[in-house]
Amino acid sequence: MKKISFVIVALMAWSMASAQAPRGQQELILPDGFKPASTNTFLSQYPAVNSQTREATFRVVAPHAQSVALQLGGKHSMKKDDKGVWTYTSKPLVVGFHYYSILVDSMPVMDRGSQAFFGSNWQSAGIEIPEGPEGDYYRFNKNIAHGEVRSLYHWSDVNGLERHINVYVPAEYEKNPTKKYPVLYLVHGFGEDENGWSTQGHMANIMDGLIASGKAVPMIVVMPSGDIKTNSDVRKASGDITQILIKDLIPYIDKTFRTYTDKQNRAMAGLSRGGGQTWTAVSNNLDKFAWMGGFSGSGRFGANPNNPNAPVNTIETGFNGIFKDAEAFNKQMNLVFISIGTEEGPQAKQTYETLKNHGIKNVVYHESQGTAHEWLTWRRALNDFVPRIFKK
Amino acid sequence: MKKISFVIVALMAWSMASAQAPRGQQELILPDGFKPASTNTFLSQYPAVNSQTREATFRVVAPHAQSVALQLGGKHSMKKDDKGVWTYTSKPLVVGFHYYSILVDSMPVMDRGSQAFFGSNWQSAGIEIPEGPEGDYYRFNKNIAHGEVRSLYHWSDVNGLERHINVYVPAEYEKNPTKKYPVLYLVHGFGEDENGWSTQGHMANIMDGLIASGKAVPMIVVMPSGDIKTNSDVRKASGDITQILIKDLIPYIDKTFRTYTDKQNRAMAGLSRGGGQTWTAVSNNLDKFAWMGGFSGSGRFGANPNNPNAPVNTIETGFNGIFKDAEAFNKQMNLVFISIGTEEGPQAKQTYETLKNHGIKNVVYHESQGTAHEWLTWRRALNDFVPRIFKK
Repeated sequence: MKKISFVIVALMAWSMASAQAPRGQQELILPDGFKPASTNTFLSQYPAVNSQTREATFRVVAPHAQSVALQLGGKHSMKKDDKGVWTYTSKPLVVGFHYYSILVDSMPVMDRGSQAFFGSNWQSAGIEIPEGPEGDYYRFNKNIAHGEVRSLYHWSDVNGLERHINVYVPAEYEKNPTKKYPVLYLVHGFGEDENGWSTQGHMANIMDGLIASGKAVPMIVVMPSGDIKTNSDVRKASGDITQILIKDLIPYIDKTFRTYTDKQNRAMAGLSRGGGQTWTAVSNNLDKFAWMGGFSGSGRFGANPNNPNAPVNTIETGFNGIFKDAEAFNKQMNLVFISIGTEEGPQAKQTYETLKNHGIKNVVYHESQGTAHEWLTWRRALNDFVPRIFKK
Repeated sequence: MKKISFVIVALMAWSMASAQAPRGQQELILPDGFKPASTNTFLSQYPAVNSQTREATFRVVAPHAQSVALQLGGKHSMKKDDKGVWTYTSKPLVVGFHYYSILVDSMPVMDRGSQAFFGSNWQSAGIEIPEGPEGDYYRFNKNIAHGEVRSLYHWSDVNGLERHINVYVPAEYEKNPTKKYPVLYLVHGFGEDENGWSTQGHMANIMDGLIASGKAVPMIVVMPSGDIKTNSDVRKASGDITQILIKDLIPYIDKTFRTYTDKQNRAMAGLSRGGGQTWTAVSNNLDKFAWMGGFSGSGRFGANPNNPNAPVNTIETGFNGIFKDAEAFNKQMNLVFISIGTEEGPQAKQTYETLKNHGIKNVVYHESQGTAHEWLTWRRALNDFVPRIFKK
């Protein structure tokens, strides 16, 4: 192609733009072994990660701040140089994805080097500490076919507003214009949003890999918001999306996509609060779901040590009493998948054992080794859960 | 539905989360006439906008900061109360979408009340000052059929990496499994990314409305990144994506979607730098495009007053000399669409007049009244451009 020159109005306008680009970050030289985190905006060198040692270096330009600290599993003071640049290099971090913030004179702000990841109800910074080849299952694989994540808005009469959803369809969807597919409804955690699974969770890469290898059947995955926005001046993060799901979302999906609509072909799972939402929705609609998963969030039986005043669930009364008659439940539900990171505590295992001991047959317990209440735990859970569903 | 109680592991984990939610924002009472901006995260009351007066109030909690200011078309000092809350109420703002930042002791940070909008190469805060009913064309309309924005990654041999794109398909796409569609390639501006058109631009609502009303023919719209990411430690915001477009993206789209592949059914447009990229790509590939648009960014002829050292374009030599033989060009190109906001300066009109006077017939000039180098200008440009393309 012949090189040509052009001048665009944009350059002038950009130079007047109110917000500044990262200050010369692209010219910085990183220490040996460090690379820009995969979670950075694409011009940002920092934060930088050493994939061998799993150390990360953070960098903030704040010449006039009195104190700057990193909030990431605790508060870590950053050190200022004579140009007003604050840096901090971490001890080895756990692999996977971590939200973090920068405390500028105690005010938590987003690190401008990072992409935005919606968590804790704000657009948070995040950093990925890379795994080795064992993490390939959630990475882009150029040698297999790729599905699509589709962004749609559907009208909800229950909510009285349009609602945004993301829908994964498998690579083969467009090639089989009459074929129908089973549907997994997959919910994010508290403080996150409907983009979490496709952004922080890399769910499309995980699904593509499972389907391409034949481990999972091709399926549609619907990712709704677990919160309820309203038009009023006061907005609420509600814990119950069952009505929206049953009355608006499922009918919309079955109308818009080529789906099987019987319960054998409908599953629901969620992480953290999304796990609780799954248990609520499914236990009230056993005629509509035959597979369920709670990733680091599932029904719990017995008192809550962290909240002694919370109502106590029992096998007899909890969750509409669906577990009480184990034999009847076993006929209704093909899978109750309970998953947890080993650093999260014993509650999920206790739930599993309570159900197992009570005679619930189709309950499966999955542990993510060495991970906490974080996205790597949930990527692993999804990767283990999906091959188990929609199989006769 | 019977109310049930459940306890989830998540609540404990959430309370330990490193980043905090907006501090009690949902309990704030807004002044009369003010509502949370539509661009806020959904629990945030601030920034708040008075749609009648077009004033906006900004609020930042920073008890330990020495100074806090709003950067939005200039720097505006915010005022601190005795609880360390800083506020500022603007004069009437121009309608449309504005990027802004908060300066905390001179350090630009993102306002945590805002959603993230990628602009100026970082995840920026933004605020929408609403239009009246004249803005309905870019709002969700529950009474018409809705297309989808599909998120895909395609492998690029030119780039040596996977590249993320968004692809709009019209509502009818799935209902006509053998029908083919024309394709518009639509590029964002400098410092923005491939999500800009569907997020800041509300392009799906605009397209849905134009197609539902019969003003535009159903079409596919491909929104690529205008930047080139690399695997190396040094990353570049390149101004030329022509090779990726021609060698990787167009073949991928024509393989993946049901498209017409002749030049009469392929258009390209872009805003700001994306306009420049359009002129570069199209002028080097007149056999592949028959329609082109530059929104606040197009080829310019004559010296650049803001950059006297820039090479000068002339009709004879600029853009591969494609305009030199006006008659030949008129046969090649069905539309050269040039658009600008009235507050942006005279350059686009000069380009239009230069081409018109030279005998270029299919050139169209569009002005957005009272708007500057901002997304409202580009929504209006898209809304005017799209009905003109792919018509015989």
